[in-house]
Amino acid sequence: MAGTGKEERRDDIVELARRRGFIWQAFEIYGGAAGFYDYGPLGARLKRRLETKWREFYLREGFYEIETTTIAPREVFASSGHLASFTDPAVVCKRCSSVFRVDASVHRGVRCPECGGELEPSGEFLLMFQTRIGVTKSDQDPQAQRKGEGYLRPETAQGMFVNFQRLLKFNRDKLPFGILQIGKAYRNEISPRQSLIRLREFTMAEVEIFVAPAEKERHPRFAEVADRSLKLVPQGGEVAEMTVDDAVRRGIIANQYLGYHLARVDQFLEEIGIPRTHVHFRQHLRDEMAHYATDCWDAEFLSEKYSWMEIVGVADRGNYDLSAHAASLHLDLQVQTESGKVVPHVIEPSFGLDRIIYALLESALYEEEVERETRRVLRFTPAIAPVQVAVFPLLNREDLQRKAHEVFEQLRAASFFVEYDTSGSIGKRYRRQDEIGTPYCITIDYQTLEDETVTVRERDTMKQVRVPLSGLQEALK
Amino acid sequence: MAGTGKEERRDDIVELARRRGFIWQAFEIYGGAAGFYDYGPLGARLKRRLETKWREFYLREGFYEIETTTIAPREVFASSGHLASFTDPAVVCKRCSSVFRVDASVHRGVRCPECGGELEPSGEFLLMFQTRIGVTKSDQDPQAQRKGEGYLRPETAQGMFVNFQRLLKFNRDKLPFGILQIGKAYRNEISPRQSLIRLREFTMAEVEIFVAPAEKERHPRFAEVADRSLKLVPQGGEVAEMTVDDAVRRGIIANQYLGYHLARVDQFLEEIGIPRTHVHFRQHLRDEMAHYATDCWDAEFLSEKYSWMEIVGVADRGNYDLSAHAASLHLDLQVQTESGKVVPHVIEPSFGLDRIIYALLESALYEEEVERETRRVLRFTPAIAPVQVAVFPLLNREDLQRKAHEVFEQLRAASFFVEYDTSGSIGKRYRRQDEIGTPYCITIDYQTLEDETVTVRERDTMKQVRVPLSGLQEALK
Repeated sequence: MAGTGKEERRDDIVELARRRGFIWQAFEIYGGAAGFYDYGPLGARLKRRLETKWREFYLREGFYEIETTTIAPREVFASSGHLASFTDPAVVCKRCSSVFRVDASVHRGVRCPECGGELEPSGEFLLMFQTRIGVTKSDQDPQAQRKGEGYLRPETAQGMFVNFQRLLKFNRDKLPFGILQIGKAYRNEISPRQSLIRLREFTMAEVEIFVAPAEKERHPRFAEVADRSLKLVPQGGEVAEMTVDDAVRRGIIANQYLGYHLARVDQFLEEIGIPRTHVHFRQHLRDEMAHYATDCWDAEFLSEKYSWMEIVGVADRGNYDLSAHAASLHLDLQVQTESGKVVPHVIEPSFGLDRIIYALLESALYEEEVERETRRVLRFTPAIAPVQVAVFPLLNREDLQRKAHEVFEQLRAASFFVEYDTSGSIGKRYRRQDEIGTPYCITIDYQTLEDETVTVRERDTMKQVRVPLSGLQEALK
Repeated sequence: MAGTGKEERRDDIVELARRRGFIWQAFEIYGGAAGFYDYGPLGARLKRRLETKWREFYLREGFYEIETTTIAPREVFASSGHLASFTDPAVVCKRCSSVFRVDASVHRGVRCPECGGELEPSGEFLLMFQTRIGVTKSDQDPQAQRKGEGYLRPETAQGMFVNFQRLLKFNRDKLPFGILQIGKAYRNEISPRQSLIRLREFTMAEVEIFVAPAEKERHPRFAEVADRSLKLVPQGGEVAEMTVDDAVRRGIIANQYLGYHLARVDQFLEEIGIPRTHVHFRQHLRDEMAHYATDCWDAEFLSEKYSWMEIVGVADRGNYDLSAHAASLHLDLQVQTESGKVVPHVIEPSFGLDRIIYALLESALYEEEVERETRRVLRFTPAIAPVQVAVFPLLNREDLQRKAHEVFEQLRAASFFVEYDTSGSIGKRYRRQDEIGTPYCITIDYQTLEDETVTVRERDTMKQVRVPLSGLQEALK
């Protein structure tokens, strides 16, 4: 009964996800567009549960959530440095005019992947989507044109920075404080990749923690994570597994604050069910860091299909952003602390939720041969499974259906995510729920009508136990 | 002790909301831009609670949530009719080139409100934000230009329509089914209004219910709402209060399906705390309906500042959208039902969450004179209040603080939204919590250390009762 299909099992996770309503290529009936995906009913539920879990995780730190606009005027991104630096080098085909990102095309040789034509450098391509805010008749007037220029944000973070003064006041002028935001961000990629890996429209979950520079050396709750063991790949170094405390003492992680948040990211990924064997933290090389970062560690997930890929970035943005906005606006964004007036530093854990969902799907998929059939299971942890419980009447008889529906409604009223299914044999219904990762299936049969007990079947072991209805909710928890 | 400030009390709700961290003009340090607002920590919390309540309300109907992209290519909006019809007539000033929406400027006379210049008609202005997807070097080639054209969605609904075939399959080819979505939508308004009333970027919560045309006459759960009394303003008629059942029987509301959903909208607005006295349902006149609607009722809120304003629209979109996409793509979107193959009709309750938040703020604000001071209270229902409980130590003594913090952490662990406040007199702390609408304040004093009881103070009555800590959570619920 043990799993055998290890080799081939991952290939079609995107196909399974499409078929069962997790993710769909957006506006596919119109031919689709690279880099745009929709979440179907099960995917949206999974995403909602992930977002709720993430929010609760960081609210427990005493942080506050805000929600800022996705469009901002040119000036904001001129100050933040994105207009000048948020670009990719491109090459263009001399024959068919196709444009490619340099790192994606160079290794295929110097010919155009589309038509075999000759490629030539095409300069830096701005990765922000541009739009125009409002209307002006002065179409010929370049100044008026520029005035209406707006961009879709490439990260949610700038919304926190431009509100810094208000947030500081909300926190009664004290450091440190943390602000979180979940929302859409946009990158007009030159060469978007398949499925959820490199999207043009995606969801970020970001935390900006404003802290006095001197305070980074000590985190008040560091003891809670000090003994957590992390797999680290430091700048130019080898993979090493060590405790957070060790890594900070040895100077591999720059300070306790960064160490604390790396550990929390690692803990969160474990809680949602990303296998610890498939996660490490890799420190950015100097020349790959974003223009705003002074230090950055990526939590990378080992995908069977895409190899190591970033799913979370934890950056020390220093005082780059606040200083940049202060300089543009001739503002003083210093804060009075015990050690004088300082410009706060920013530590930023930044989660790419779509990639995390891909990682959840890929690592949940498990196949095994059972009674000469392939059983495909998404082994989601119950904390994020889109359906937690399925309820079946054994047969489509009215008395069983009535009872099953009663159980279904009770569980729904108790805030479980429940499905009701009457279609096909029980075996078929089990397989259907396995494939979407439902941890428990409950069957109502004639014995239920007699003694108020039901069969509860567990997804991973396929074991069935008889449970009295009176203790069902407790048993499921 | 009764309220006296009725006349002046509403004027500064936006100012209060700004000061206390509910809503902020977006990127104000850059001068802001009309029609863009951010939610601060308390506003984002309020919005999150509202969204959660809305989601649970419609999931109870057995509907599913999805999440689709905010950007879509030109073709989608060409088919949907938005490219041709989602426009406002504009006038332009001959002298200063300012542009105005016709209905906003005409009543001020024919002169420019900015400079007094002469105005002239400027045609129809497209209200969608335009952008470009991807990059092409063929800047001179109009066909390639058009190919990359994208728009920010003006409603979430199109995401459901273009996924119709998949959603139908997910529902095992059966009608009816309902799909919900909460997300950003965008309208590049010519003349955005103040605060949350007419935004360029806003949040919609929409339900699209796909139903066979013949099924609209009967809703299976109509009995649950039949006796609910609604204030109706039918096309060209007078305000009349009657039960939903009456309104359907008399042909004022076209069918049970529409009646059922009007009643549910009314119920939802009541549950979140919008006063019933301030809500009516107004049927659109023929010439004010959106291009896709065959019938539409707006739930309107009576604002003291803006008079009656739409906060929810309940439209019967007929088969407009599915037929439009089917025609563009030469697809067959018919569904087999008992009465043959039909193109489903769509009933759509569509909520403007930002306006609802404005309505919640405005109607919650209450002022009264207490001990010669003005007490300002946001009377949020506990179901949506951003802070549910505040915990205070009576004095800043270590033993009281320790105990208060313990109570705070216990409530937080039990999923209450809790604040901890040690600053200023108890009276001052009460006022601060009143102003953000916290229903309950808990004070820890020396008696607490002796007998494990605390003082619970209720916001609206200002009554204080002593409650044992062991029964506190139960009492708060």
